[in-house]
Amino acid sequence: MNFKDNLTQKTTETEAVIKAYLPAEEGYQKTVLEAMNYSFLVGGKRLRPLLMKESFALFGGEGDLCNPFMAAIEMIHTYSLVHDDLPEMDNDELRRGMPTTHVKYGVDMAVLAGDGLLNYAFETALQAFDVAGEKEFSRVVHAMKVLARKAGVYGMIGGQTLDVEAEKKGIGLGLPEVSFIDEHKTAALLQASLMIGAILAGAGEEEVHAMETIGYNVGVAFQIQDDILDITSSTEVLGKPVGSDEKNSKVTYVSLMGMEAAEEKQKSLSDEAVTLLRGLGKEASFMEELILSLVHRKM
Amino acid sequence: MNFKDNLTQKTTETEAVIKAYLPAEEGYQKTVLEAMNYSFLVGGKRLRPLLMKESFALFGGEGDLCNPFMAAIEMIHTYSLVHDDLPEMDNDELRRGMPTTHVKYGVDMAVLAGDGLLNYAFETALQAFDVAGEKEFSRVVHAMKVLARKAGVYGMIGGQTLDVEAEKKGIGLGLPEVSFIDEHKTAALLQASLMIGAILAGAGEEEVHAMETIGYNVGVAFQIQDDILDITSSTEVLGKPVGSDEKNSKVTYVSLMGMEAAEEKQKSLSDEAVTLLRGLGKEASFMEELILSLVHRKM
Repeated sequence: MNFKDNLTQKTTETEAVIKAYLPAEEGYQKTVLEAMNYSFLVGGKRLRPLLMKESFALFGGEGDLCNPFMAAIEMIHTYSLVHDDLPEMDNDELRRGMPTTHVKYGVDMAVLAGDGLLNYAFETALQAFDVAGEKEFSRVVHAMKVLARKAGVYGMIGGQTLDVEAEKKGIGLGLPEVSFIDEHKTAALLQASLMIGAILAGAGEEEVHAMETIGYNVGVAFQIQDDILDITSSTEVLGKPVGSDEKNSKVTYVSLMGMEAAEEKQKSLSDEAVTLLRGLGKEASFMEELILSLVHRKM
Repeated sequence: MNFKDNLTQKTTETEAVIKAYLPAEEGYQKTVLEAMNYSFLVGGKRLRPLLMKESFALFGGEGDLCNPFMAAIEMIHTYSLVHDDLPEMDNDELRRGMPTTHVKYGVDMAVLAGDGLLNYAFETALQAFDVAGEKEFSRVVHAMKVLARKAGVYGMIGGQTLDVEAEKKGIGLGLPEVSFIDEHKTAALLQASLMIGAILAGAGEEEVHAMETIGYNVGVAFQIQDDILDITSSTEVLGKPVGSDEKNSKVTYVSLMGMEAAEEKQKSLSDEAVTLLRGLGKEASFMEELILSLVHRKM
């Protein structure tokens, strides 16, 4: 099977796994449950749970232990978009061509739906204890800790904080700040995905650390590619307006380093990720292609 | 020592335990950490962690196993207030005489601080695994599940959902809906506190269930007392405007049942809680006085 067909099939499988964990839309709290599921089902590439499952398989993981965490990481990703889209944050009214949660359900319900998704992510991940064998118990604890850390103030929320301050309060950013935002806002959940898959499969400390580094490289390279495409692509190819970073005076790797150096940085991050992945000595050709498709994407 | 002095001392001890878990205000994400700590330190009665500790002690719990959960439940309570106070929710500008988080830090940072506190609550609770002995491992898992469930869409968030809908969209409420809101919005975290203390101390299933029922009774009785005081008290005694429920056409136990029946309901809930507590056959005189002081409070 070629990469593209393989990706389509794996994404479909991932979608089925994570959807099974959504709450039933019933009871007096029906509206918040509907808003949560709506936000979740608007879609996306399901990249984080897919990477988690691939990492789990890479290290010999079998069975369902990973499944609750796959759903949980996507719930966390989803809640972050719901709150990010709020009027007082990015004030986005459309996501993937559909009304954002607060447009459809009201701002109050969008706040609660985001809270609900974050909380439900932990409820869902905790289900892994029910399917864990005795020797897997401490792996689940470790995975829970990574999930919470990478999603929180020392992970994604930390990156969002600086991003919000930078955009709204006009703090002059340099390379350390831009790196911090990309590492935390973009890379942290990718790191969590790759690490949790490895941890649950019983990978050793060094292997988990390698996955963390790969997640960092892929996340930052992905973000630099975003910045590059905003300049070099066209609105037709990208499917969204180009030139928005310059228009919004957004500080990026490209604005700070220049195009050539940003491209070099992007390439070296991506090369290092592939080298690390190959160094694990596993059959990882699909994950390698997936990583390269992410960091070299044209849209 | 009389009850009041005892309460003051225990509250001071609780305050010291939970404050120790707050994050340091440093790094690029400093602002969100400051906003989280500000919200947390504005104060309050620390009722939930205090009840948890008392329940833990009641069932013979010793050592620090309970401490991370004490901090966690207060973080969850705090985040719920931060998000509840937002302009699109209750739009409150003052809490305990201090500016609310969004007034002081901006709405965007208040959203992130609330998210940060909820997430950090789970990070903090997970620390209990580090101090748990082998036989306590499954207790910590159980406590984590109760924490997540009672805070989430089947607990507090569920109650907030119906409350928000009722207030903003004018849904006609009857007794089942008012009960649902009180049970979930008010009682759920009290239930979690009492249950988690018992679980971590190794209480049996029936004992944990008794604590859950006591938490329900206390929470709902507390809320009915709130509704009663809004009518019978004065602004001077209460420290906040009375008559606000009628002004806002808020449906309460009193408006639905009449004052007399509401008082009877409140008394029977409170009596049942005391009977259940005494039925445990433990030395629980402080907790009994605490419960009675809550449900019979005059302000």
